[in-house]
Amino acid sequence: MPEYYHPNREKLHRIIFGTDTFAGKLFDVILIIFILMSVLVVMLDSILQVHSKFAGIFKLLEWFFTIVFTVEYILRLYVVKRPLKYATSFFGVVDLLSVLPTYLTIIFATSHYFIVIRILRLLRIFRILKLIQYLNQADALLQALKASRAKILIFLFAVFNLVIILGSIMYVVEGEANGFTSIPKSIYWAIVTLTTVGYGDISPKTPVGQFIASLAMIIGYAIVAVPTGIFAVEMSKARRADKMVFFACPSCGYDISDIDANYCQNCGYNLKK
Amino acid sequence: MPEYYHPNREKLHRIIFGTDTFAGKLFDVILIIFILMSVLVVMLDSILQVHSKFAGIFKLLEWFFTIVFTVEYILRLYVVKRPLKYATSFFGVVDLLSVLPTYLTIIFATSHYFIVIRILRLLRIFRILKLIQYLNQADALLQALKASRAKILIFLFAVFNLVIILGSIMYVVEGEANGFTSIPKSIYWAIVTLTTVGYGDISPKTPVGQFIASLAMIIGYAIVAVPTGIFAVEMSKARRADKMVFFACPSCGYDISDIDANYCQNCGYNLKK
Amino acid sequence: MPEYYHPNREKLHRIIFGTDTFAGKLFDVILIIFILMSVLVVMLDSILQVHSKFAGIFKLLEWFFTIVFTVEYILRLYVVKRPLKYATSFFGVVDLLSVLPTYLTIIFATSHYFIVIRILRLLRIFRILKLIQYLNQADALLQALKASRAKILIFLFAVFNLVIILGSIMYVVEGEANGFTSIPKSIYWAIVTLTTVGYGDISPKTPVGQFIASLAMIIGYAIVAVPTGIFAVEMSKARRADKMVFFACPSCGYDISDIDANYCQNCGYNLKK
Amino acid sequence: MPEYYHPNREKLHRIIFGTDTFAGKLFDVILIIFILMSVLVVMLDSILQVHSKFAGIFKLLEWFFTIVFTVEYILRLYVVKRPLKYATSFFGVVDLLSVLPTYLTIIFATSHYFIVIRILRLLRIFRILKLIQYLNQADALLQALKASRAKILIFLFAVFNLVIILGSIMYVVEGEANGFTSIPKSIYWAIVTLTTVGYGDISPKTPVGQFIASLAMIIGYAIVAVPTGIFAVEMSKARRADKMVFFACPSCGYDISDIDANYCQNCGYNLKK
Repeated sequence: MPEYYHPNREKLHRIIFGTDTFAGKLFDVILIIFILMSVLVVMLDSILQVHSKFAGIFKLLEWFFTIVFTVEYILRLYVVKRPLKYATSFFGVVDLLSVLPTYLTIIFATSHYFIVIRILRLLRIFRILKLIQYLNQADALLQALKASRAKILIFLFAVFNLVIILGSIMYVVEGEANGFTSIPKSIYWAIVTLTTVGYGDISPKTPVGQFIASLAMIIGYAIVAVPTGIFAVEMSKARRADKMVFFACPSCGYDISDIDANYCQNCGYNLKK
Repeated sequence: MPEYYHPNREKLHRIIFGTDTFAGKLFDVILIIFILMSVLVVMLDSILQVHSKFAGIFKLLEWFFTIVFTVEYILRLYVVKRPLKYATSFFGVVDLLSVLPTYLTIIFATSHYFIVIRILRLLRIFRILKLIQYLNQADALLQALKASRAKILIFLFAVFNLVIILGSIMYVVEGEANGFTSIPKSIYWAIVTLTTVGYGDISPKTPVGQFIASLAMIIGYAIVAVPTGIFAVEMSKARRADKMVFFACPSCGYDISDIDANYCQNCGYNLKK
Repeated sequence: MPEYYHPNREKLHRIIFGTDTFAGKLFDVILIIFILMSVLVVMLDSILQVHSKFAGIFKLLEWFFTIVFTVEYILRLYVVKRPLKYATSFFGVVDLLSVLPTYLTIIFATSHYFIVIRILRLLRIFRILKLIQYLNQADALLQALKASRAKILIFLFAVFNLVIILGSIMYVVEGEANGFTSIPKSIYWAIVTLTTVGYGDISPKTPVGQFIASLAMIIGYAIVAVPTGIFAVEMSKARRADKMVFFACPSCGYDISDIDANYCQNCGYNLKK
Repeated sequence: MPEYYHPNREKLHRIIFGTDTFAGKLFDVILIIFILMSVLVVMLDSILQVHSKFAGIFKLLEWFFTIVFTVEYILRLYVVKRPLKYATSFFGVVDLLSVLPTYLTIIFATSHYFIVIRILRLLRIFRILKLIQYLNQADALLQALKASRAKILIFLFAVFNLVIILGSIMYVVEGEANGFTSIPKSIYWAIVTLTTVGYGDISPKTPVGQFIASLAMIIGYAIVAVPTGIFAVEMSKARRADKMVFFACPSCGYDISDIDANYCQNCGYNLKK
C-alpha cells in the first residue's frame, strides 16, 4: 500500500464501506433510516393536503438530508483510493444523483422530474443490503434469473410479436368508435388483456372483438406457465450460493464477493498487495 | 402431578383440549358449529335489509354465543394448570377477544370496529383443526413456506422498491389531471397493475404513461414466476411431515407436536412427570 | 350370461357403449355432433336478435334433438342388463336431464332454468371422450389433481378465512359510502382482489383502504405460488397412466378401466362369467 | 448438382438464405431493420394526429419498402432451385403477403384489412432469428411446449366446458338487466373472470350472481396451477437442444436443422449430392 494513505482514511473506509465493525454497522443502520425518511418526505410532500400544511418543514428536512448525503458522498470520495473510479461506478452515480436535485433548485425552478431522481435514493439501500446476510438468498435468485434470461427473452419476444399482431387485428375489427383509436393504443389494450391486468378502460364491444379477446385471454392465461416453468427449473438447478460479500475494494469501494480474488473487478487494484 | 389437581379437571381438560375421546370430538364439532354460526350472524347483520328485519333476533343470538364462549373461556382457564400462561398465549387472547366486544357494548355504544374483532372468532377454528388429521398436509405446506420465506421476502423487497419508483415516474408523467394525484396513490396504482389486479379506477391516459404501464404489466406478468418457482422448489424438497399433534399440555393447553417432548414449549411444564 | 339376453341386444350394446367397432365409432361421432349442435341452438336462441328471426326453426330443432336423445336414452336402457343401475348412475341422470326440459315445456311454461339443464348436455361428451385415446393424458392430470387435493383444500380453507377477515376489515374501514355496503359484499370484493381479477365495480377510495387493498393484492400475487407449487410437484411424481378404457359393463354400461377386473365397480356384475 | 445452376445463383443463395458469410449477416441485419421500420410506419400511420401530418411521407415509405421486399422476393424465387416449393411454403406465403397489399391498393381502394396483412411482415423476423444462436433456447421451449400439448389441450377443453356451463348459469341468474344479455356474452364474461382478466365491463349485480362469480374466481385462481405444473414438468425433462441450424436447402430454401440429413424435409432435394 502506498505510504501517503493515512491510517485514519483506512479506518473511515472500514466504517463507510465495511460491516465488520460496530461503527460500520451503526453507520449503515443510520444511513438506511435517513434514506427511508428522505423518501418518505418526498412521498408525503406530493400529497396536496399534506403539502399545503407542512411545505416549510419538508423543505427544511430535504435540505438536512441533502447536506448529510453530501457529507457522506465527499467522505466516500475521500476514503477510496481512486475517487474517479468510484464516482463513475453505478452506486457512485446514484450517490451523486441523490443530492444533485436539491442544489439544482437553487439555480433552476423546482422541476417535477427532480421527484423521480430523489426517489432513486431508494436504490442506495441495495448497496448496504448487499453486504448483509440475506444476500445469499438473493444470489440464488439472481443466479436462476440469469440462467433463465435467454429463454425468458425469447418468450418476451414472442409475446411482443403476439401483442402487435393482436393489437392490429383488434384495431381493424373494433375500430375507433369502440376505443381502439390507433394500433399503438390497441397494442396497449392487447398487453393489458394478455397479462390478465384488465383495466377495462378499453374493452371490446363487438361480438367478433369479444371472441378474439376471449382467445387472447385464454392464451394469456395458459402462457403464463412458460416463464414460471422456465424459472422453476432453473431455480431447482441453482445450488445454494454460499459465498458471502465481506469486504470492499480499498481503492474504489467496489464489493468484492470472491475472497480469493487478486485484483478488484472494477478498478484492477491489487488486493493481495 | 400436584395433589390439588382434581381428577374431574383432568377429565374436562381431555374433553376441551383433546380429541382422543368421544366427548372431546363432540365438544370440538359443537364448538366449530357455534363459531361458524356466530360469524354468520355478524355477516348477515351487516346487510341493511336483513338487519332491519332481524336486528332483535341477531342481538339475542349474539348474547347467546357470547355467554357460551364465556363459559368455554372460563372452563379453559379452570382446567389448565397455569391459567395466566394460557390467557397470554395467542389462542388465549383470541378466545378472550371473541367475547369482549359484546360486553363492551354495555358500557360503550356499539362500535363498527367490534365487527372485525367478532369476525376474528374464525381464527379459533384453526386451533381445533390443528388437532385433526388434515394437519399433516398443512405441515408440509408450512414447511415449504418457511423454507422459502427468506427468498420470498427478498422478492417482495425488490417488488416494494419497483412499485415506489414506478409510482413516482407515473406521478410525474401522468400528473394529477389523470388521477395520479400523489405519489402514494400512484404507488397504489403500481401495485394494482404489477399484481395484474387492474381495477381500472386509475389508468394511464397519456401515450407515454400507457407505454410505461405496458412495460410494468409485462414485468409483473413475468416476475410472478419468481415466487412460484421458489415455492415449487421448496415444496418438492419438503418431505411429507408425518408427525401428528395428539395431545395438549395439561398445564397451559399448548399443542404438543413432539410425542417425545419432556417439557412444554410454551410454559415449560414437565410432561413426563 | 342368462339365456333371455338376446344377441341383438349385445350387438347394440357394443355399438352404443363400445368404440371397438366401426358402427360404434360412427355412433359416437354422430352423437357428439348432435350434442354440440343442440348446445349451439340453445346458445344462439338466447341472443335476442337471432331469437326474433329463427325462434320457429330453433323450436323445431330442439324437438328434433330431444326425440333423438330420447330414442338414444331408451336404447341405452334396453341394452344394459340392469336399467335401474344405469338410470341412477351419473351419466344416466345426465342423459335423462338432457331430454326432460323439452317435455316439461308441454306441461309448464318454458322456464329460464331449463336453459342451464339443456346446456348440461355438454357433459355427455365427456363419456364419449372417456373412451378415446386422449384419456391417458387426462388420467395423468386427474391423478396429480387427486394427489394434491388435500393440500389444495387446506390452501383454499386458509384463503376462505383470509377473505372473510379482509372483507370485514374493509367493510369497517371503507364503509357503505364507498360501495362496501355489507360484509358479504366486502368479502366478494376481497375475492375479486385476492384472485387478481379486479373488476373495479367496487374499489377502495380511502387512503387506509387503498393501503390494506395493496397488501391484499401483494399477498394474493404471492400466494398463487402455493397451488402451482403443490400441483407441479404432484405432476412431476405422477407416472404416465398407460391403462386405457376399452369396454363398458354389459350390465349397466359403466366404463371398466381395469382389463383384469372380475366385477363391475358400479353394479357388481360378474364380468368374467 | 445440375449444370444449369449458375455459380452466382449459389453465391446469392448463401447471402440470402445463409448466415455463414459476412454478406449474409449484413443482408439479415438490413432486412430486420427494414421490416421493423415498415411495421413502425404502419403503426404510426394509424394514429390520426400523425397520419394527418405525415400521410404523404408514409405512403412514399410504404412504396419504398414494398419495392425492396418485392426485389427480395424475386431474388428468393430466383436463387432457389424449386421456386414453387418455396412459394408455397409458410415463409414463402408470408413473403408474398408482405408486398401484395400495397399493389392491391392500385386496383382496389385501401382497405382496413390490409393493415393486418402488413403487420404480418413481423413474422418474417422469425425466419431470420431461426438461423441465429438464440434458437437453441427456443428449441428447448418449443420441445417442452410440444410435449405438454396434449395435456394442455385437455385442460383447455375442460376450461371450455366450464365457461359454457358457467356462462349459462350466470345468464339465467343475472339476466339481461345486469348486462348478461345472451349466453355467448355470458360466456365472454366467464372467460374474462376465469382468466382473472376482469375488465369490469360486465360484472354480477345480484348476491347470488356475486356468490357464483366468487366461486368461479377461486376456481380460476387455483387452476392456473394446472398448465404451469404441466409445463414446468416437461421443461425440466427437456434436455438442452444443442443442435443448431446452419444451412438452408439449396433447392427450396428450407432450414435444415439436422447436419447429417440426406434429403430436405420440405422438397426432398438430395443434400449429399
